[in-house]
Amino acid sequence: MNNHVVIMAGGVGSRFWPISTPEYPKQFIDILGCGRTLIQLTVDRFKGIAPMSNFWVVTNAAYVDIVKQQIPYMPASHILAEPAARNTAPCIAWACWSIKKEDPQANVVVTPADAVVMNPEEFRRVIKNALAFTEKNNAIVTIGIKPSRPETGYGYVEIVESSECSVRSSSSRAEAESQLKVESSEIRKVREFKEKPDLKTAEQYLKAGNYLWNAGIFVWNIDTITESIIKYKPNIAAQMDEIVGSQLTNSTLTTDSKLSTLNSKLKEIFPQCEKISIDFAVMEPAAADGKVYTHPADFGWSDLGNWASLHDKLNKDANNNGAVGNIKLYECSNCVIHAEDAKKVVLQGLDGYIVSEKNGQILVCRRSEEQRIREFSIG
Amino acid sequence: MNNHVVIMAGGVGSRFWPISTPEYPKQFIDILGCGRTLIQLTVDRFKGIAPMSNFWVVTNAAYVDIVKQQIPYMPASHILAEPAARNTAPCIAWACWSIKKEDPQANVVVTPADAVVMNPEEFRRVIKNALAFTEKNNAIVTIGIKPSRPETGYGYVEIVESSECSVRSSSSRAEAESQLKVESSEIRKVREFKEKPDLKTAEQYLKAGNYLWNAGIFVWNIDTITESIIKYKPNIAAQMDEIVGSQLTNSTLTTDSKLSTLNSKLKEIFPQCEKISIDFAVMEPAAADGKVYTHPADFGWSDLGNWASLHDKLNKDANNNGAVGNIKLYECSNCVIHAEDAKKVVLQGLDGYIVSEKNGQILVCRRSEEQRIREFSIG
Repeated sequence: MNNHVVIMAGGVGSRFWPISTPEYPKQFIDILGCGRTLIQLTVDRFKGIAPMSNFWVVTNAAYVDIVKQQIPYMPASHILAEPAARNTAPCIAWACWSIKKEDPQANVVVTPADAVVMNPEEFRRVIKNALAFTEKNNAIVTIGIKPSRPETGYGYVEIVESSECSVRSSSSRAEAESQLKVESSEIRKVREFKEKPDLKTAEQYLKAGNYLWNAGIFVWNIDTITESIIKYKPNIAAQMDEIVGSQLTNSTLTTDSKLSTLNSKLKEIFPQCEKISIDFAVMEPAAADGKVYTHPADFGWSDLGNWASLHDKLNKDANNNGAVGNIKLYECSNCVIHAEDAKKVVLQGLDGYIVSEKNGQILVCRRSEEQRIREFSIG
Repeated sequence: MNNHVVIMAGGVGSRFWPISTPEYPKQFIDILGCGRTLIQLTVDRFKGIAPMSNFWVVTNAAYVDIVKQQIPYMPASHILAEPAARNTAPCIAWACWSIKKEDPQANVVVTPADAVVMNPEEFRRVIKNALAFTEKNNAIVTIGIKPSRPETGYGYVEIVESSECSVRSSSSRAEAESQLKVESSEIRKVREFKEKPDLKTAEQYLKAGNYLWNAGIFVWNIDTITESIIKYKPNIAAQMDEIVGSQLTNSTLTTDSKLSTLNSKLKEIFPQCEKISIDFAVMEPAAADGKVYTHPADFGWSDLGNWASLHDKLNKDANNNGAVGNIKLYECSNCVIHAEDAKKVVLQGLDGYIVSEKNGQILVCRRSEEQRIREFSIG
């Protein structure tokens, strides 16, 4: 079994203050009130895709103990502790260099730690499809979520329509097509990545039908991704050679002095990596080179990036309130409430508010003002 | 120095949930955010009136440790722990029987633990006046607060107007007048106690000018109060004879067996006492007998009985918000907020709300709904 799962868990989740704090961000919180934290739900979702021994988590050094506690059956050596946050490209590069050293035949899924999926069965079917594709093809696959609304908070991927696909004369694209060793009727070629659009553009995307939400879930074999990084971001590749070249395999991790050599190398070089997302660093140029595919999917995905999306995913009462915790509501409507560690919360007469509490910090604000929460948290 | 101070501290303060709970009610809370709890402020207010060795606190058995902690310099034997709440008449009777045993010449002030006084100097002047009066006269004096508004939440005392006083022919009243050994130009005879009025009646009281708020602060010498209780509530008096007759003086409190005799007597008899307020039990019949006087006063008194009165006493910001705790407000007005043990509270977009937190319990409700807080606390 060469399937590996990389979970990116370095975010600070400042939009969910105070339930998410830099000390304990949202991916480690039971934000849905279901008894499992977001990262635990992410691990659960991949069961059957890869053995626990092939799970990897890239996170901030400050969260290593939380990861160990929440995912106890994962190898501790697979928790990659970033000494500094450098966005997703160095994060993914480090994970993939590390995987390649351990398993040169690896087939890899990369996922954020903090998204939710309402239909994990369908999720697994899609991921298995994509892995079967990348096992045989040097292709980058991104999971594209079929949009249900003109969302302006997500990036989009534009897919090449079938008819267009077959008539295009571009030699490089035709070449790429010809290399496909497994045909999946669902996997489609990506023409271009699109950044978060304005509402008008998002409406056009929805109407056009060939735009999907970029969920930030990527599938590739280990040679494809490492070679892509070498091609598009040679500096980062060289930095990874230096970091992981000095890195020791599990079996030789025997002395403190060797570990400290690794640590000092990592601490010296990693913070110097270019701070850039994998989308800018690899996906966009690779798409231009015709190497990126997408698996359109519809498995109830949400990035849970804001309170509106949390409200959307929570069970609602008759007055459209979504609440996690011991919450008593009187004459409240359209509220989203999260206070799982409060003994008791009583709210009366609130319409359209966010109410949240954690660890002695309390927020009450209108839902329309949620973009100011970061400001509130530091004010 | 025969002055004694009795502090009644048995209330449960359910209108201030969650900052006041049956486990830790409001008299033991720093509700004004000034660094002193209400009972500590009450003790402070009497400094110079009586030595600490003459302070007494009657409270529920559950609060004895809190009292010891908050008033460390008071004799522990002066903390009278009620085995059951029987309203103020048995409470005051027990305290006065106990005082009489220790100091038959005692001159006594009885006060609730949870009122506030904004002008303690004037308070002390009034109390000293009243004590000077009761030192020489067998009179019951209640402190009457000059009303500033037609308040429906307080009882009133109706004073006999001067002219009426001098022309009245009632022999018993004339007799009482003739007994006065110290004339205070401020002390007035009470005609009648009035229960909480409706708004129309309260407006009439305010207009009439001879009605004062009954603050529940009483001054009397020990013979007057014990004889009054014997006269108007002989059953309670007999029960006190039995409880305090078995009670041991400080110096003989030497063995556990003697103490347990006292305790078992108290636990047996006290809960059988009639559950009645001192107003009904003594003040009203004594007023009818012409034995009750009042010292009109204006020292910024509030019983802090509800959130409106707390809002009234707190310093307000430019938007009429009164807040205790680390509170950040954005677009909030007319709110009253108390969250002294929360690390941080951020509120946005609230107008006219109560927000309070203590010990992991949170309340947000419209100020207009504060009479429902008891319901909220048990809901």
